[in-house]
Amino acid sequence: MKAVSLSKLGGPEQLNLIETPTPEPQAGHVRVKLHASALNRRDVWITLGQYPGIRLPCSMGSDGAGTIDRLGPDVPTELLGQEVVIYPAYDWGSDTRFPSPSFRVLGMPDPGTFAEFICVPASHVFPKPTFLNWQQAAAIPLAGLTAWRALMTQAAAQPGETVLVTGIGGGVATFALKWAVGLGARTFVTSGNADKLEQACQLGAAGGINYHMENWPKQLAEMTGSVDVVIDGTGGNNFPGCLALLKPGGRLVVYGATAGAPSAGLDMVRLFFRQTRIIGSTMGSPAEFAAMLNFMVEHHIEPVIDQVFALDQVVAAHQRLLSAQNLGKIVLRHD
Amino acid sequence: MKAVSLSKLGGPEQLNLIETPTPEPQAGHVRVKLHASALNRRDVWITLGQYPGIRLPCSMGSDGAGTIDRLGPDVPTELLGQEVVIYPAYDWGSDTRFPSPSFRVLGMPDPGTFAEFICVPASHVFPKPTFLNWQQAAAIPLAGLTAWRALMTQAAAQPGETVLVTGIGGGVATFALKWAVGLGARTFVTSGNADKLEQACQLGAAGGINYHMENWPKQLAEMTGSVDVVIDGTGGNNFPGCLALLKPGGRLVVYGATAGAPSAGLDMVRLFFRQTRIIGSTMGSPAEFAAMLNFMVEHHIEPVIDQVFALDQVVAAHQRLLSAQNLGKIVLRHD
Repeated sequence: MKAVSLSKLGGPEQLNLIETPTPEPQAGHVRVKLHASALNRRDVWITLGQYPGIRLPCSMGSDGAGTIDRLGPDVPTELLGQEVVIYPAYDWGSDTRFPSPSFRVLGMPDPGTFAEFICVPASHVFPKPTFLNWQQAAAIPLAGLTAWRALMTQAAAQPGETVLVTGIGGGVATFALKWAVGLGARTFVTSGNADKLEQACQLGAAGGINYHMENWPKQLAEMTGSVDVVIDGTGGNNFPGCLALLKPGGRLVVYGATAGAPSAGLDMVRLFFRQTRIIGSTMGSPAEFAAMLNFMVEHHIEPVIDQVFALDQVVAAHQRLLSAQNLGKIVLRHD
Repeated sequence: MKAVSLSKLGGPEQLNLIETPTPEPQAGHVRVKLHASALNRRDVWITLGQYPGIRLPCSMGSDGAGTIDRLGPDVPTELLGQEVVIYPAYDWGSDTRFPSPSFRVLGMPDPGTFAEFICVPASHVFPKPTFLNWQQAAAIPLAGLTAWRALMTQAAAQPGETVLVTGIGGGVATFALKWAVGLGARTFVTSGNADKLEQACQLGAAGGINYHMENWPKQLAEMTGSVDVVIDGTGGNNFPGCLALLKPGGRLVVYGATAGAPSAGLDMVRLFFRQTRIIGSTMGSPAEFAAMLNFMVEHHIEPVIDQVFALDQVVAAHQRLLSAQNLGKIVLRHD
């Protein structure tokens, strides 16, 4: 079969579509013929060598959707032919609060989804929502799940609350906006790009602000009153502003730090007087993945897709993601 | 009656024992004849002008225990003569997550407990645990409640977990140690003072470390493995070490910042990869106060008292607290 492989570091240009043996499912596993996959920042970081534990050569890709075409031993036969979305990791474990030590994201070092086929545990495939096409379904897993856990489990956002999603455009931020709007939260966004702010409002945001503006937190406070929940994947020097916007009892969930660590120390006094929670979050469990898919079906939510590339345009797809021009997911079609 | 009053700022020396009218309870309130009261850092900060919203002259004191000697209208008569501990604040409100906007700690600007009598709502008095004397009972309220909410509600510490309490010696830290040991947690402490570390071990700590030692977090990690919960009232440059000690899913509760803000920014990557929670907490609700007293009775826990002063030695008592030599509460006896 064809699969995308990385054999040396140096950026997206090092990715190659190669021929590799088609896998056979072991006991308890299914094989999925992938119809589409999707990119995450993790993939770009791996090509750049900016991810822990890189082993080369490796197969790439965490997000995928397709049809089950082969069953390993001890798998119920009714799974054959099912159209599924794949849970994008292994070994969450039994504790809902954090993953087990052997937890890992799908792809690198395990075989990934930028391939014609993948074998995964039968418990890691979930029925594709029928109103979504393959490209939409493939866009969901890693970013959708990360946003779901951050907003629903960690922040425990409630209908009617005010939610701020920073850095709209990235996959997780865009899903966080979708989930918050679906939940019935009043949702605001930040971006460094005016077009993205406008697009976010078309997707249901109540308003947005450009974080390049001087004193954006004050302007956002005038717009929103104050905020119950911030979902932040940027960190950096906008972080204190996010913290300052929170109401008493507010929650700031951190799922990434594209802008690095904030240079200033935490405002401890504000933290304890306001009973603020800063909550680190990454990925999510299979149970959260299932809850997210049910929510999508119930609220008829479609992922936001930025652009679709053919599998053999994998380099250009990664360059698009690296440019940070995207709003929503970058998808690969496999046929 | 006699009561401690502050009419100008400048430190504990400005406190005076004055004559003032004995209060009469209004509807729904009871009058308590106070047998003992206790000091909190808040009191010292008020005398130094380092607390928000100071109004002078003011009456002082948040902690007290005594006998109900007079009832306002609409109060059940069986309360008369009851021996009680007083909930140390007003207006928590109906949300368990954070206090209402009118929430305030007892004393300054409201009449405080460094007095012969105080009137409080009938719903704010709780039966004194019978195995405690007056001085022990008066030591509980503000520090005990703050430690209770931090450890039990916010961190949701569990039996068998490993808990670190920083800066042992202060009232909240000493109660946090007592609650954690009572809960059945493996409890460690830090201090800058070797004697306090030894005393903490006598109070049930499994071990302690001097935070003046170079690389104390690494040494503590060797001692503890790693830590589920940190209860920290210090902040400052030991904060990153506290964060680094936490297991995946660990909780760091901040209830104060005697050492100020940390100079370095947060390690965001550790935060999200480890699903860490940093939780601000202060005070607690009447329901938490009641739960705390029940826990004390169930586990037969006595507060740690550092030193007892007569009410007319109130200046010396505050100087003792300001010196930070204490381990446990500084108490005033009123008779």
